[in-house]
Amino acid sequence: MANFTSFSDLRALCLDLPSGHPAASAAVVQREATLTKPPRSLGRLEELVAWLAYWQGHAPPRLDHVEVLIFAGNHGVTARGVSPYPAAVTAQMVANFSAGGAAINQIAKLASADLRVMPIELARPTRDLTVAAAMEADEFLAAVDIGYRAVPEDCDLLAVGEMGIANTTAAAALCAALLGGGAGRWAGRGTGVDEEGLARKQAAIDAALVFHRGILGDPLVLAAALGGRELAAIAGAVLAARRHHIPVLLDGFVATSAVLPLARLAPAALDHCRAGHVSAEGGHRQLLRELGLKPLLDLDMRLGEASGAGVAVLLARAALACHTGMATFAEAGVSGTED
Amino acid sequence: MANFTSFSDLRALCLDLPSGHPAASAAVVQREATLTKPPRSLGRLEELVAWLAYWQGHAPPRLDHVEVLIFAGNHGVTARGVSPYPAAVTAQMVANFSAGGAAINQIAKLASADLRVMPIELARPTRDLTVAAAMEADEFLAAVDIGYRAVPEDCDLLAVGEMGIANTTAAAALCAALLGGGAGRWAGRGTGVDEEGLARKQAAIDAALVFHRGILGDPLVLAAALGGRELAAIAGAVLAARRHHIPVLLDGFVATSAVLPLARLAPAALDHCRAGHVSAEGGHRQLLRELGLKPLLDLDMRLGEASGAGVAVLLARAALACHTGMATFAEAGVSGTED
Repeated sequence: MANFTSFSDLRALCLDLPSGHPAASAAVVQREATLTKPPRSLGRLEELVAWLAYWQGHAPPRLDHVEVLIFAGNHGVTARGVSPYPAAVTAQMVANFSAGGAAINQIAKLASADLRVMPIELARPTRDLTVAAAMEADEFLAAVDIGYRAVPEDCDLLAVGEMGIANTTAAAALCAALLGGGAGRWAGRGTGVDEEGLARKQAAIDAALVFHRGILGDPLVLAAALGGRELAAIAGAVLAARRHHIPVLLDGFVATSAVLPLARLAPAALDHCRAGHVSAEGGHRQLLRELGLKPLLDLDMRLGEASGAGVAVLLARAALACHTGMATFAEAGVSGTED
Repeated sequence: MANFTSFSDLRALCLDLPSGHPAASAAVVQREATLTKPPRSLGRLEELVAWLAYWQGHAPPRLDHVEVLIFAGNHGVTARGVSPYPAAVTAQMVANFSAGGAAINQIAKLASADLRVMPIELARPTRDLTVAAAMEADEFLAAVDIGYRAVPEDCDLLAVGEMGIANTTAAAALCAALLGGGAGRWAGRGTGVDEEGLARKQAAIDAALVFHRGILGDPLVLAAALGGRELAAIAGAVLAARRHHIPVLLDGFVATSAVLPLARLAPAALDHCRAGHVSAEGGHRQLLRELGLKPLLDLDMRLGEASGAGVAVLLARAALACHTGMATFAEAGVSGTED
């Protein structure tokens, strides 16, 4: 807990943002122009390589150690009937991750990425955010710290995701509190609630907004009051990645809402992040637009557990393979443009 | 040349379309519902697995032998100054594919796909489509036949692409002739022509539409008059894939325009095809919309050579890995929904 013993410690860290390495991305752009293809014809794949280089500070960038990190937490608001699944599923899915049976296990293996899962106090859910702060300051800061410390310093690319029954309710409440629009704008069907469940979810979010109206405005205090331990840990991991020059692929609605407070504190806080995908959970597309993040994939996925970010790792690998493996015009004896 | 000795032979083949295997896709859907995730939460990845099974007739489907096929051809219309690259680049890039130096080499390797490149009479470009039929009937049918015979019967998934300096001009002319809208709707910057080059390209397309106005209406005759050998071969390969129960990932604007004549002859002709991506070449998005194909990827790529389809193979692999590798709710001891 050395890093953050108070909100003001954490706020100071959020505002002290290391910058990237323009020389590394410039070297990537320079090499791209020599490769046997029309200029910029690999589109976002080329941008991905330059982005990796910019944050790693290497040209070419490396993808030797790609890490997928999943944080899991439980939520008191589950009692409001906001999810079709019981809270016990969070721990059951953590066991499934450990046994290799979840979607992200298959995706991480295909993408040659290491997968680590960190359950955070699953037996101690957050409090029901409709009638209390979900976390006290010390609980929130401890969860941020867990995420911060979970990031290996030698990692080349980090994909972050989450698991937590009812956490789309917490995410939607956080988005509504920080971006406005009420429950109607941000509540989606999550893992698949029916009409009545969706109505209960919206009611819970609106109740939370009323209960916490006195603290609207402070992003970190709101993250503690409305978020969850896994969301706090994701924010910590994204802060640590910035510190250690590690680019980040964000997953879906919950993972993105987890870092929204960072962006509200400092607009440049997510410059080292890319949206791995846009989820079918309706709020995600709006949230990405608010954050100025253009998703790499749009596949109607809405599973969480870093699955969308994990698939996006494959794009990063394709991008880097082209950048490092392709021949130059000179090497291949291919003529350039006539003009 | 046993298969097509006349347009009417080919037309008959285009209309005789094997159907898929609903039992196989139903078995996929049934297994998906048992896997440890909310129903349909892997979105288009789940649809991909069902689509593979539907056309292969196996559940689960297989991706043991994925083939990337690139056809290359040269175009008389190059003389009209429609590309910034000289025609010699087609053969130079074929050599680059053989030497392993192109983007698709890196992508195919990453996707564990076999890559085959088939140059078709590069020393004998098509005629200039502004003043003649690009190909005579026998030349066109021979190119279709090359594509048809190139498809290995034991292939599980085929990705088709092309290489041919000036072939976006041929593709745009074909789209304009079959779908209307003139050169303005379909001509894009291809490999990167400047303003003057774009004007020359549009002028060439409009001239071709006037010259060939007498044959507007017959898709195969138009494909011969306005297309190219590599486009004809792609059409042949897509027909062969349908015959051999092989699903197909289409690449960009040129590859998709190559199969447009098939869809104009028989609306169901492309049911075994998916659009691997949507290209940054402007006409491609419109063409996909006309064909009812929703692209899997949208990455501002515009390279051709099957690069977009090749990246989409990675999505198919991720989809199948989840489908076959994930635990069921029963196996993992995970609770289902409460309702």
